[in-house]
Amino acid sequence: MKTILILGGGKSATYLIDFLADSCQSGDRKLILADLDPVLASKKLKGKQNTEAKELNIENSSERSALIASADVVVSMLPAFMHPVVAQECIKQEKHFFSASYESEEMQKMKEEVSAKGLFFLNECGLDPGIDHMSAMHLIDQAKEKGEEIISFKSYCGGLLAPESEDNPWKYKFTWNPRNVVLAGQGTSRYIEKGELKFVPYHQLYKRLETIRLDQVGDFDGYPNRDSLSYRSVYGLENIETMLRGTLRRAGYCKAWDVFVQLGMTDDSFQVEFPTGTTLRQFINSFLPYEKELSVEEKLGKVIPDLDFPIFEKLQWLGFFGDKKLPQTKGSPAQLLQAILEKDWALAADDKDMIVMQHIFEIKSDQGIKKLTSSLLCYGEDAIYTAMAKTVGLPLAIAVDQFLKGKITVRGMHVPVIKEIYQPILEQLALEGIRFEEKYS
Amino acid sequence: MKTILILGGGKSATYLIDFLADSCQSGDRKLILADLDPVLASKKLKGKQNTEAKELNIENSSERSALIASADVVVSMLPAFMHPVVAQECIKQEKHFFSASYESEEMQKMKEEVSAKGLFFLNECGLDPGIDHMSAMHLIDQAKEKGEEIISFKSYCGGLLAPESEDNPWKYKFTWNPRNVVLAGQGTSRYIEKGELKFVPYHQLYKRLETIRLDQVGDFDGYPNRDSLSYRSVYGLENIETMLRGTLRRAGYCKAWDVFVQLGMTDDSFQVEFPTGTTLRQFINSFLPYEKELSVEEKLGKVIPDLDFPIFEKLQWLGFFGDKKLPQTKGSPAQLLQAILEKDWALAADDKDMIVMQHIFEIKSDQGIKKLTSSLLCYGEDAIYTAMAKTVGLPLAIAVDQFLKGKITVRGMHVPVIKEIYQPILEQLALEGIRFEEKYS
Repeated sequence: MKTILILGGGKSATYLIDFLADSCQSGDRKLILADLDPVLASKKLKGKQNTEAKELNIENSSERSALIASADVVVSMLPAFMHPVVAQECIKQEKHFFSASYESEEMQKMKEEVSAKGLFFLNECGLDPGIDHMSAMHLIDQAKEKGEEIISFKSYCGGLLAPESEDNPWKYKFTWNPRNVVLAGQGTSRYIEKGELKFVPYHQLYKRLETIRLDQVGDFDGYPNRDSLSYRSVYGLENIETMLRGTLRRAGYCKAWDVFVQLGMTDDSFQVEFPTGTTLRQFINSFLPYEKELSVEEKLGKVIPDLDFPIFEKLQWLGFFGDKKLPQTKGSPAQLLQAILEKDWALAADDKDMIVMQHIFEIKSDQGIKKLTSSLLCYGEDAIYTAMAKTVGLPLAIAVDQFLKGKITVRGMHVPVIKEIYQPILEQLALEGIRFEEKYS
Repeated sequence: MKTILILGGGKSATYLIDFLADSCQSGDRKLILADLDPVLASKKLKGKQNTEAKELNIENSSERSALIASADVVVSMLPAFMHPVVAQECIKQEKHFFSASYESEEMQKMKEEVSAKGLFFLNECGLDPGIDHMSAMHLIDQAKEKGEEIISFKSYCGGLLAPESEDNPWKYKFTWNPRNVVLAGQGTSRYIEKGELKFVPYHQLYKRLETIRLDQVGDFDGYPNRDSLSYRSVYGLENIETMLRGTLRRAGYCKAWDVFVQLGMTDDSFQVEFPTGTTLRQFINSFLPYEKELSVEEKLGKVIPDLDFPIFEKLQWLGFFGDKKLPQTKGSPAQLLQAILEKDWALAADDKDMIVMQHIFEIKSDQGIKKLTSSLLCYGEDAIYTAMAKTVGLPLAIAVDQFLKGKITVRGMHVPVIKEIYQPILEQLALEGIRFEEKYS
C-alpha cells in the first residue's frame, strides 16, 4: 500500500486530485489531500475510497513533518516559495517529491543529496513548465535520432479563453493567479535569433511581438518570456542559432496591456495611497503629466503615440475614462490595477478557457531545411474544470502514477526532459485528449 | 585641542580637506585624514601644520575604532553603505558625526540614541542633498515669517560642464561617480503638481522634461528625481500643491540618454558576456529586434520613433555605428555602457565643470502670486578643483567649523533644514563665492 500526499488542493489541483483519487480505487494506493480548508478538500475527494482529507497549516513544521511522514510520495501544489521547505523535509524523511513549478536555485542545491539518498524529485512537470519540455524533447530527440540538426526553436504557450467565452474587448479573463498575470514579463527577457543574443527590457517586451497562428482558432500575440538562453543546455541544443520561449495572448491584447506597462501602472515596487472615492480616471491621470489644457484622453494620446481605437476601447471598457471608483485605494500600482481587473476579468461559472501551445522548429537534414509546427489546443469544461487545471494537473498526476507503477526507474532530481520520464507521460496525456498536431512545411 | 577625523580623501574631498586643514592653522585644532592610500592623503594635506595622514582599512573594525577614538568629530566621505557602520561606532564612542549623504532609514533608527547621548549628527550637508535644503529653507522660512504661503516649489540641480568645456555632442562628462550617472533615475519618481500626485516610471523619466533656463548659460533639461513627496514634510510644506525636485542635464542630453533607457542598456540586473572583439554596433544590436533586411540604424529608428539627428550624432560620436570595440565584454549592460562612457566622458586635466541649481517658488501673499527664481552657478577651476568638490565639500567643512566654534548648539540627528544650522553655513558659503541670485517675476 503506497500513500500519495497532495499538499494544497487549490483551483489548479482539480484534475490532479480526480486522477490520483481514481488511481486509488484498485486498492493498492491511498491518497491524502491536505489543505488549509479540510472541508473543501473533503468535497474535492468526492467520497472516493482510499482517500482522506486533512487540515494543513503549512507554517506549522511539526504538522507538516507528520503529514510527510505518512506518505511515500509528496506532490506540492503550494505557492512556489514553500517548495524548498517541503523538499528539505522530503529529503530528511526519504520521500519522493513532485511539483509543477520552476526548479529554483535553492532546489537545485539539493540535487546531490536527492541522488545520494536514491530519491526521485521531479520539478517543472505541469503545463509551462512541463508539457512544453516534454513535447519539445520528444521532437528534439526524434530529430537527433534521425541525424537531423535543429537550427531554430521557438515555443509559445498561453492560458487563454475559448473563443466562445471571449466576450470582452480584451478577449481575456483570469484563468490562473491574477498577480502573476499583472506582473508577467517583469525583468529582462533574453533569447537568441540567427546567432544574435537579444535582450528585451520589460518596457519593450509587449512591443517585441510575433504573430502566432493556429488554423482552428486564429491569431495570437507572442512575446518573448524570461531567459530562453538557459534552455539551450536544458534541451541539449547548445549551438542552436535561434531559441525563444514566449507567452501568448489573443491578438491585440499586448498593444493595450503595453499602455499599463508604459505608464508604470504595473509597478509593484512602491506603495501609493489615494483618497477613498478616487476614480479610475484619476488613477490613470497620476501616471500622466500635468497639462492644464488637456484631458486625460488627450494626454494619454501624447504619451502613447500609437494609441488607436482597439486600445482605447479596451481601456474604456475597464472604466478608465469614466467615474468608476477604484476598488482598492492603497497598495502598489500593480495591486490597485489587479483589484480593478479581478472584478472585470473574473471567469463566469460557464466560461470555458483554452490552452494554446505551439512549437516551431527549423530542422536541417540532407534534404534541406524543413519547418515543423507542433500545436496543442486544449479546452476547459467550465470555470472549475479548466483547461489550465487539466494541463497543469494531469502531467503531474500521470508522473506520480507512472512512478508508482514502476515505469519511471531513474532517480535523482529532474525536470521532464529525459525520454524515460516524458514518454510514458506524453502517451498517457494523449489518451486524456492532450495531444499535439504536427505539421511540416 | 579638538581633533577632526576625515574618513576618505577621494576626489570630492579636495575643498573639504583644504578648508579644514586651513582651519587648524590657528593652533586649537588638529586634522587627521585617513585614507586607503596614506601617501596620497599626505599629499592632499600639503604639509600644513596640525594635520596628519593615516592609513585607513575601513573593513578593519579595530583600526576604524582606534581612529574614531582619536577624534572629536568624524566626517565620513566613505561610500554611503559605510556610513551606518561609522555612525554606530561614533555613538558608542560619543563622537559627533558629519556626512554629505542621504540620511538612510538605517541611520534614522539611531536618532534617539544620538539625542540621548547629546551628540550632533549632521547628514545631507553637501550639494544635493545639502545646499539645496539650506538655500530652499532660507527662502521658505523667509516667506513664512512674512506670512506668505508657498504654493509651488520646484528645485533642480545638475553637476555639468562649464560651457567652455562642452566639447562633445553630449555636452557632458563625468564630474562625479560614473556608476551613479549611468543608473540615475532608476526606480519610480514621485511628485505632486497642482494637487495631483504624479508617478513616473524610469522608462518615462527622460521624456518628462521641463526646460530650465539660466540667463548666463542657457537652457537645460530638468527631469523629476526620486521621491519629491517626502520632502513636503521635511520642508514643512505639507499642504503645498506643487512640489518637484529634479536633475539637470544640458538641453538635448535627455532625449539621447533615453535611447539607452528605452533599449535596456542601463539595466544592471543581469549579467551578459560577449565574445572579445564585440563592437559597440553589435552591443546595441543585441537590444534591437532581429530583422534580416534592416541595418542597426534602421532598426533603431523603428524602435525609437523620435530619433533625430541630434540624438543620432551623440550615439555616433560614442562609436555605436562603427566598428569600435567594447572596452569591457562581461558584466551587466549598465557596466558595459559605463566602461564605454568612462573612456569618452573623462574630464581632461584643464576641463572646468559647473554646478547649476535653481529653485522656482510660487508664493501667495495679499499682493497676489509672485514667482521667485533663485539660481546658483558655480564653476570649477580644473579637473581636481571642481565645482562638484567645492559645493559638496565646503558645506560640510563649514558645518564642522561652525560646530567646533560653538555656533551650532543644537544636538541630535539632523539634515540642514533648521535655521541655526543653515544660516551660518549659507553666510560662510557666500563668502566662498557660493551664492544664489534671486529674481522675482
